[in-house]
Amino acid sequence: MGDAFAFRIDATDGGARTGTIVTAHGQVRTPAFMPIGTQATVKAVMPEEVRRSGADILLGNTYHLMLRPGAERIAALGGLHKFMNWPYAILTDSGGFQVMSLAGLRKLDETGVTFRSHLDGAMVSLTPERAIEVQDLLGSDIVMQLDECSKLPATRAELERAMCLSLCWAERCKRAFEGAGPGRALFGIVQGGDQHDLRLAGARELGAIGFAGYAIGGLAVGEPQAVMLSILDTVAPALPVDKPRYLMGVGTPDDIVEAVARGVDMFDCVLPTRNGRHGVAFTRFGPINLKNARYADDPRPLDAESDCPAARAYSRAYLHHLVKANEALGAMLLSASNLAYYQTLMATLRAAIASGRLADMREEVKAGWARGGLSAS
Amino acid sequence: MGDAFAFRIDATDGGARTGTIVTAHGQVRTPAFMPIGTQATVKAVMPEEVRRSGADILLGNTYHLMLRPGAERIAALGGLHKFMNWPYAILTDSGGFQVMSLAGLRKLDETGVTFRSHLDGAMVSLTPERAIEVQDLLGSDIVMQLDECSKLPATRAELERAMCLSLCWAERCKRAFEGAGPGRALFGIVQGGDQHDLRLAGARELGAIGFAGYAIGGLAVGEPQAVMLSILDTVAPALPVDKPRYLMGVGTPDDIVEAVARGVDMFDCVLPTRNGRHGVAFTRFGPINLKNARYADDPRPLDAESDCPAARAYSRAYLHHLVKANEALGAMLLSASNLAYYQTLMATLRAAIASGRLADMREEVKAGWARGGLSAS
Repeated sequence: MGDAFAFRIDATDGGARTGTIVTAHGQVRTPAFMPIGTQATVKAVMPEEVRRSGADILLGNTYHLMLRPGAERIAALGGLHKFMNWPYAILTDSGGFQVMSLAGLRKLDETGVTFRSHLDGAMVSLTPERAIEVQDLLGSDIVMQLDECSKLPATRAELERAMCLSLCWAERCKRAFEGAGPGRALFGIVQGGDQHDLRLAGARELGAIGFAGYAIGGLAVGEPQAVMLSILDTVAPALPVDKPRYLMGVGTPDDIVEAVARGVDMFDCVLPTRNGRHGVAFTRFGPINLKNARYADDPRPLDAESDCPAARAYSRAYLHHLVKANEALGAMLLSASNLAYYQTLMATLRAAIASGRLADMREEVKAGWARGGLSAS
Repeated sequence: MGDAFAFRIDATDGGARTGTIVTAHGQVRTPAFMPIGTQATVKAVMPEEVRRSGADILLGNTYHLMLRPGAERIAALGGLHKFMNWPYAILTDSGGFQVMSLAGLRKLDETGVTFRSHLDGAMVSLTPERAIEVQDLLGSDIVMQLDECSKLPATRAELERAMCLSLCWAERCKRAFEGAGPGRALFGIVQGGDQHDLRLAGARELGAIGFAGYAIGGLAVGEPQAVMLSILDTVAPALPVDKPRYLMGVGTPDDIVEAVARGVDMFDCVLPTRNGRHGVAFTRFGPINLKNARYADDPRPLDAESDCPAARAYSRAYLHHLVKANEALGAMLLSASNLAYYQTLMATLRAAIASGRLADMREEVKAGWARGGLSAS
């Protein structure tokens, strides 16, 4: 175990910030992108490849891990870092989001949520206290409070109820967290959907409770990008300036660039790995769908200038072949290449903020995406 | 392109030999194990990982590649080595074996075989001449003749017919091969099933035609190991002593040890990667079935002394979890670990032959397998 949790801002550019989060498992350069390690693995990518892509931290899903192989089992085996051979920082979610989207037969009240496991049908209970306990057993560096995330569109009454419940659970999580292992940090989560006043009130009340970092939840759940960015314009300035801000579940490269410009420090998203498994590459020239027959004879790599072997050493024709033949190597190469693209984008954003040229970089990056993959390189 | 094809024997120990095959794409240390790259990829393993395991050469399947993406397409993209990012030696089979096992509606006569593609139902013709042409388009370092492989048990009449047809095709392949690209080598294939006299006659006639190497086909097709070894006892001494001997499609670690003792120099088999995808690890302590619930809490790696990170840096509990959760990383780690185990076994065999202690090594290796994975390490 190394240092206690800390956050340092090294430079700002408009609303954007670049800095460092210190954890017991190493430093996290911000703005940071966290690959998703749902079931204690970033799907189809070796941990050393995840690291080589530039990731300082990844996200583990409490819902999945508590059901299989079980948090107590992972604890007995030495914790999640050791279990999945990832000695760097780990953030775990609270499990609440997946309970809402995956589990059957949910019963939600002030106490918590009871649900039927999607694996074996067993009834499982998740309370704010249990969410903290499970994440403590996993050994997370960054622990998330249990919250209720509403899908959009939703009525104002529904959004207000979920926001208030999430605040109530935030307080219970903070109390429960006092018994957690050393070196961990607890983040609160702002809810409130697309209602600016609810978001503002939530951000202020969470700040008053006091957390090591603040997440913005309940976005990228079906609303247009403009709505998400407008909510960020409201929420980010209302959060404590000296704590990391984490936009949950976001997003496309464009979402990330825009959110960074609005002061977000952390992101997670399944897109690079999920799209990789579905044959889509993220590149400097925009997305490339390798399933398309136009790539069957294309000798060019995804990006001849990439640092990532998966993007540089294989032709689009070969990737097309692997995807069409449903070969595991297709998912492996495209997932690795996409993670590398995301991490390179984050490094570019950090460098741009540090040198005060984020606005220029934003235009350059978007011009590259607009050029398209066919005319490129 | 490097050197022309050559074979040098460095040491012998009883019937066993160790040496070097020189190809235009590097040297192959023998006895050699060739991982299978069916559809231009060793399933679920990055090419750099295949190389790191110690492989000098891999096998490509002509049947699969001629149907998808097509041999002409691979040639236009610079050949199979470049296509699959494997700059080392490649042996391709003739396609005949898979035509018999995978394709529909086969018509076989002296001319060749016509079959219905399992992919799109198109009718495709494979003659001895086309088999050579396709392998030349792929750019193989070692080209196999087209043959007919009988499943065992088979009648003597059937075995004799297939053996004679294979000899006839051997001559046609040799003539067709005279037009192949520089630096390639053509291997003939001995057939004859479990009939010793047919095998002997086939070996002598093939030797009279003259090939750069000799394969023993039609074994490990359903017969007991004792039958296979008895045929090897007959065939191997009847083959030219100064050419490599390749036992096709073999086999288990024990099969390989026994065949090396009988003078075989080359092997290929799907077992390490196929069993890896099915949750089974090959180790010094014998096979370990990670699906078994007894491993759910087992903190030990597959083999703490392995050079392979997949075998050393992950607990059996973690591998069990990945296999149960059907995560791609389970297949990736177990395939990589199994390839490393096979290559380590080959290195051990080479060293034992070089130092004249193959008999001792055989006993030690078998004692390790007998000890079992549970009591080990």
